[in-house]
Amino acid sequence: MSHRGRLNVLANIAGKSAAQIFAEFEGNIDPKSVQGSGDVKYHLGTEGTFTAESGAQTRVYLAANPSHLEAVNPVLEGIVRAKQDLIDLGGDGFSVLPILLHGDAAFAGQGVVPEVLNLAQLRGYRTGGTVHVLINNQVGFTTGPSSARSTTYATDVAKGYQVPIFHVNGDDPEACVRVAELAFAYREQFDRDVIIDMICYRRRGHNEGDDPSMTQPLMYNLIEAKRSVRKLYTENLVARGDMTLEEAEHVLQDYQGQLEKVFTETKEGGYSVPASAEPIAGLERPESQREDAGTMVGWKTAVHPSLIERIGAAHASPPEGFTIHPKLAQLLERRHKMSTEGGIDWGFGELAAFGTLLIEGTPVRLAGQDSRRGTFVQRHAVLHDRETGAEWTPLLYLAGDQAKFWVYDSSLSEYAALGFEYGYSVERPEALVLWEAQFGDFVNGAQTVIDEFISSATQKWGQNSSIVMLLPHGYEGQGPDHSSARIERFLQLCAEQNIVVAQPSTPASYFHLLRRQAYDRPRRPMVVFTPKQLLRLKAAASSVEDLTTGTFRPLIGDTSVEPAEVDRVLICSGRVYYDLLAERTKRQDTKTAILRLEQLYPLDTDAIREEVARFGADDVVWVQDEPENQGPWQYIHVNLPDDVPHVRVISRPASASTAAGTAKAHQAEQAVIIAQAFGR
Amino acid sequence: MSHRGRLNVLANIAGKSAAQIFAEFEGNIDPKSVQGSGDVKYHLGTEGTFTAESGAQTRVYLAANPSHLEAVNPVLEGIVRAKQDLIDLGGDGFSVLPILLHGDAAFAGQGVVPEVLNLAQLRGYRTGGTVHVLINNQVGFTTGPSSARSTTYATDVAKGYQVPIFHVNGDDPEACVRVAELAFAYREQFDRDVIIDMICYRRRGHNEGDDPSMTQPLMYNLIEAKRSVRKLYTENLVARGDMTLEEAEHVLQDYQGQLEKVFTETKEGGYSVPASAEPIAGLERPESQREDAGTMVGWKTAVHPSLIERIGAAHASPPEGFTIHPKLAQLLERRHKMSTEGGIDWGFGELAAFGTLLIEGTPVRLAGQDSRRGTFVQRHAVLHDRETGAEWTPLLYLAGDQAKFWVYDSSLSEYAALGFEYGYSVERPEALVLWEAQFGDFVNGAQTVIDEFISSATQKWGQNSSIVMLLPHGYEGQGPDHSSARIERFLQLCAEQNIVVAQPSTPASYFHLLRRQAYDRPRRPMVVFTPKQLLRLKAAASSVEDLTTGTFRPLIGDTSVEPAEVDRVLICSGRVYYDLLAERTKRQDTKTAILRLEQLYPLDTDAIREEVARFGADDVVWVQDEPENQGPWQYIHVNLPDDVPHVRVISRPASASTAAGTAKAHQAEQAVIIAQAFGR
Repeated sequence: MSHRGRLNVLANIAGKSAAQIFAEFEGNIDPKSVQGSGDVKYHLGTEGTFTAESGAQTRVYLAANPSHLEAVNPVLEGIVRAKQDLIDLGGDGFSVLPILLHGDAAFAGQGVVPEVLNLAQLRGYRTGGTVHVLINNQVGFTTGPSSARSTTYATDVAKGYQVPIFHVNGDDPEACVRVAELAFAYREQFDRDVIIDMICYRRRGHNEGDDPSMTQPLMYNLIEAKRSVRKLYTENLVARGDMTLEEAEHVLQDYQGQLEKVFTETKEGGYSVPASAEPIAGLERPESQREDAGTMVGWKTAVHPSLIERIGAAHASPPEGFTIHPKLAQLLERRHKMSTEGGIDWGFGELAAFGTLLIEGTPVRLAGQDSRRGTFVQRHAVLHDRETGAEWTPLLYLAGDQAKFWVYDSSLSEYAALGFEYGYSVERPEALVLWEAQFGDFVNGAQTVIDEFISSATQKWGQNSSIVMLLPHGYEGQGPDHSSARIERFLQLCAEQNIVVAQPSTPASYFHLLRRQAYDRPRRPMVVFTPKQLLRLKAAASSVEDLTTGTFRPLIGDTSVEPAEVDRVLICSGRVYYDLLAERTKRQDTKTAILRLEQLYPLDTDAIREEVARFGADDVVWVQDEPENQGPWQYIHVNLPDDVPHVRVISRPASASTAAGTAKAHQAEQAVIIAQAFGR
Repeated sequence: MSHRGRLNVLANIAGKSAAQIFAEFEGNIDPKSVQGSGDVKYHLGTEGTFTAESGAQTRVYLAANPSHLEAVNPVLEGIVRAKQDLIDLGGDGFSVLPILLHGDAAFAGQGVVPEVLNLAQLRGYRTGGTVHVLINNQVGFTTGPSSARSTTYATDVAKGYQVPIFHVNGDDPEACVRVAELAFAYREQFDRDVIIDMICYRRRGHNEGDDPSMTQPLMYNLIEAKRSVRKLYTENLVARGDMTLEEAEHVLQDYQGQLEKVFTETKEGGYSVPASAEPIAGLERPESQREDAGTMVGWKTAVHPSLIERIGAAHASPPEGFTIHPKLAQLLERRHKMSTEGGIDWGFGELAAFGTLLIEGTPVRLAGQDSRRGTFVQRHAVLHDRETGAEWTPLLYLAGDQAKFWVYDSSLSEYAALGFEYGYSVERPEALVLWEAQFGDFVNGAQTVIDEFISSATQKWGQNSSIVMLLPHGYEGQGPDHSSARIERFLQLCAEQNIVVAQPSTPASYFHLLRRQAYDRPRRPMVVFTPKQLLRLKAAASSVEDLTTGTFRPLIGDTSVEPAEVDRVLICSGRVYYDLLAERTKRQDTKTAILRLEQLYPLDTDAIREEVARFGADDVVWVQDEPENQGPWQYIHVNLPDDVPHVRVISRPASASTAAGTAKAHQAEQAVIIAQAFGR
């Protein structure tokens, strides 16, 4: 949608006052209320009420969006799905209508458009049909259709999804209304997407510097000769005798007069915008769904042992007649045992976090590629009857009044899939919403969502989310595309407390982290680098007590060594800790302390300073699996306070690629890192 | 394509020997030949010869690809287009056939698939039709079709592009052959895409840990009961009397025997792979198209003044009867004048770089959104007759024997569009190939191409490219999505001389940079942060002499101040230089030197050390427009050698967003930066 078009929607559909829009143009932002960067006015969302001539009213929500064309599509779908889930008509009452406005060139060119069309009928994603409206200017900035698409119509990609498409003449307002009514009726009847392709033209350039007659001279000869839609329609109405020329002129003058009055008042300082990052109010929400200013009162991350036990028991209570897969019977038995005896592995630690939240009334939604079973055969949130294929989700059977649990295998998408969960999370403050990458390496397919929404929406638009991104990350010799979720890239985005970046090293640490995220206020997105090897590593297992006491610790110190003996402190994060621990044991080394940084941002510099000081060692070393230009090192180097002794690094050498291509090369590199960490 | 499937193609289609494949599995890489990380064996490309039973032969090229499904699609199309352009049958002889192998879930889920389908008929991108083959396993890892797509068939998205789709039973080899012949015939006849959807199943799991009966029990009951394609087809052939059972068994044993023999030999060390990063040989190339080990002999970046003059004159010589747009007549006249009198602006500096290369025999291909005119109305590489719309490209009329110049407006895509140019560049070592973002801010839509190909392909696969990415970047108050191409992200990817990252501050610097890139060897990709404000800034203009003497300087020192007087050295890159220069002039400050870093990676630390030392100042300051966590600062901080005096930073405060949302806020921030730079 163009900037002018968006302002038009803000004013005439969403009921944003002209005074407020003018004031934003003037930059009259109340400085006390500004948090973060703010954004240009044509990106801001709003919420309002549309009043029809009949007096009927409906609520209108306009999503904030970046300049990245079509990026808002999955976000809006997620917002709408969340609104529908809140109203909760059992998955059938699609009582909130998503409308997406598109440009012709972007609709044909951007891959996220079909990614979102492909979500429309999926159980985890459907919103009962979206009405798509193309404002078809027959040109994309300066690029004509023959350079912009390989199809006759800009909308042709949607044919593959059996979406009905109405092409309508934008010069004929009554035809447009008729088609809009048809499209709406179709959506209501069939719960499916529908498209209105409104053939228009762009009278002026794309922006101030643009003279379209330089690149589209013939088309702009025609356009210059054309009378405006308003004039054409007025003539039509007058000719039909529906109104007189005088009446028409009066209406026009009256409207312009109103705008000018407000504009003058704004200029004179009569109006200032409450906030650049204008908070987008939700529907009226119950207490539990409010965005609170501070941390939610009364929550803790540790839980009563009976809750863990109940979650364990749920895994040992299949439905009547359910045939468990022979390979999984033992797993379920183990889960049951873990819940009272400990030896809790990653999978159960995570289910325990979800389960306790559900019991406490916090809904949990998790979606990702193969997330129901888990990429590494570790989750098994949903089990399948070996004989009938029937599904059983143990976490649905914890308590009569528990909150809802949704876990979905997504389509093979990152961009649309992550955007959807982000939107869902925006609209459900009371829920824990998670998106999982198959491997963290593939998250760059969704880079636009991370940059434009997750890391910056609060600062740009006051739009909060507590989405959790689960990104499998670990250097285990599986090559450049199965090792790294690019920790360094997320850390580079960190500022103004915008996100949490964590890499927990035990199931208990992960458990407390997830629970904290569900309750922490103000809400912010969280990126979790999840492990592969640690999923089953005995040394990483947690006890029941680890879940029922304590809380999330950004830094885990080392109490296993005698401080006076220590002459070197290693600090690390994630998997490499266990390699270092094993080597220290093997060497019977008593001079090396090993600290684990469980949370990378915000960085708890006080805790690091204190823990390092406790050992009084001069040699402080950051150890990471990643090459020197990757992983947390550069971020740590830049951000550690000066009063921590100088920190040096042990890592793989700086590398263009994320990881070695062969297991042999990987192991050789790893041996060097470990030897360096303990060599003196 | 699955790993097993890819190995099959390597061995049986591309003619890679089984011995080599086994050796790669064993990791028997000759350590002397390894450069960079290498990659897992199922990612490597190859080139070979396929010999049919008839004895007919054809060359086969298999592109290297990352695990990012479908990411190779645009790259392969670019490679094929380049091969076709080299053969040069006038744009009609599509004598190289692109074949893309897909999985069902990825084809339906990944947006880059339709982005590439949408390129198929565009003048700048067509390859005469691609044969797409889906190996349709009816499951994506563990995700069934009902969770993976909203359509009946995985291929339905292609219907929108009017691509014929053949669904064929993978259990029937003869039907598959028949359909393949039909598909090929269609492509040959109509020069359009065609799809074979081969309905198959995956007998084993997706990988070692996967037991598909856990998630798809019923489907896998059926699969387990099925006999293999080979068995079914053997029975069929025997039943038809085409072969005896004994013959069939003999063939099978013979083939297995061959494999086992090679495997044993490999185990015993009889074969070692020449290189992990196996160089992918091109077609037989003329001298000029070779990848040379060192820098090309005999080239320089400065040119004879007559060449600049010729390029200027070409802009003043429209075709007979061509009506120039009134607003552009003056521009063309100015270009003519610049070519002899100087005052060369950015647009003409760039055209001069292109033009001189063309005259010297180096083809130039530039594609991007609105690149023919340029996002900022600055390039006008193609002019349109104001009366007839006819096109005129002055750079096509420089010399009878000049090289080809192509400039295309792309579809509104980043992912597919950048991938295509990357592939094109891989295959055309002798050409300068450029992709331009509309604003650099949108480049994150193509992050996968940057991470998986541009920054790492040489190190992973020995696959070189000299693609140039032009990314408009500049803090000018236009908000979070029209300011930053995220310089910091590219710098974080830098290692092992993988890419060049540059931000030239004058047309002449840009001119020499582009010319150096065309000739520099070994080839590597280059990222250029291009300006907005400097396009027309008088202070940034270059003289003719700037183009006809000297060469590209990674650091431009400051000769305008007396070293003995200087007590502060400012180092900066890009636009902010001119703000600093203006402020210094205004203040009549003689104590501040201003250095410009034109190339950020590789970092010329010697030049910086020497130039800083020349002033003997203790106060060395990095000044940037970007927030502290962005721009080059952290990279500079980490990488400047210890023997340069301590460098401090002046920048915007660390920020979640790239830029302020209002021009007022931007200007206030800018004033602080400039005041800090000179305040004492």
